[in-house]
Amino acid sequence: MRILGIDPGSRVTGFGIVEQQGNRLIHVDNGAIFTRSGDALPARLKLIHDGLHQVIATHAPEAMAIEQVFVAKNAMSALKLGHARGAALLVGANNHLPISEYTALQVKNAVVGYGRAAKGQVQQMVRALLNLPEIAQEDASDALAVAICHAHSSGLSNRLEKALSRGR
Amino acid sequence: MRILGIDPGSRVTGFGIVEQQGNRLIHVDNGAIFTRSGDALPARLKLIHDGLHQVIATHAPEAMAIEQVFVAKNAMSALKLGHARGAALLVGANNHLPISEYTALQVKNAVVGYGRAAKGQVQQMVRALLNLPEIAQEDASDALAVAICHAHSSGLSNRLEKALSRGR
Repeated sequence: MRILGIDPGSRVTGFGIVEQQGNRLIHVDNGAIFTRSGDALPARLKLIHDGLHQVIATHAPEAMAIEQVFVAKNAMSALKLGHARGAALLVGANNHLPISEYTALQVKNAVVGYGRAAKGQVQQMVRALLNLPEIAQEDASDALAVAICHAHSSGLSNRLEKALSRGR
Repeated sequence: MRILGIDPGSRVTGFGIVEQQGNRLIHVDNGAIFTRSGDALPARLKLIHDGLHQVIATHAPEAMAIEQVFVAKNAMSALKLGHARGAALLVGANNHLPISEYTALQVKNAVVGYGRAAKGQVQQMVRALLNLPEIAQEDASDALAVAICHAHSSGLSNRLEKALSRGR
């Protein structure tokens, strides 16, 4: 299964694609969409929307994963994040991708095995798991992390399903 | 000029269309898009997106107006509003509509002539200005109000331009 992870933001939206083959995880692509700070908000959202649409058209992922947000620094930053997140979710919906949301705790647990891991540890583990010498963009690394989290949890539920069906 | 006003919300998104003919304002349509609370967020955003896209396809507005948000009750509601707002702005951008944002103060000033007018006064003036016996949805009324605000301010800038060109 090919998974698109997204880390949306009004200035930078990271994306990462991983391919899950059995227990193996293969890195397919990662990158970031930068919006121009001088552009009006609708133009920036269109840039995010069209950029992600292009990524989906290129790599044909079968699922999308995105971080669930519970808290934001303040109402203004939450509104900004909401705009970008809305654009990202719409691209997934428009492309008929099943979308899963994971909390930061779930992502850290899946990638590092420890829910309170530091940002640097997560980035290091993403590189190690995907055999990448480096990842240019922090947001791209975060996007890969949520994709890995989805791979783990869907892998787990698949294994559970198989185990259950064997038990029947 | 035909103006689409939008009052986005995660549960209800109001829309209103007014046609400006010289100094006259004519009501064209108003309504609301209701999202199903049981639906997942991406599906709800798609409903808003597709609904507004349909409104634009039906009425072919030449401009879009939306309320600018400075404060929100809290970060969680700001995030929710941001999702819906992002979807609405994207529809405008995808349909190549110029989008103008107005503060609540500007809308109230344009509709009632008083920036601190109560919600009920604004609704009453919207009905009076557009010669409508009633408006079913509060959010649709708010959407019409921001469309009226855009009509006033673009009418004003047009008149200013004409006056300036006469003065040249």
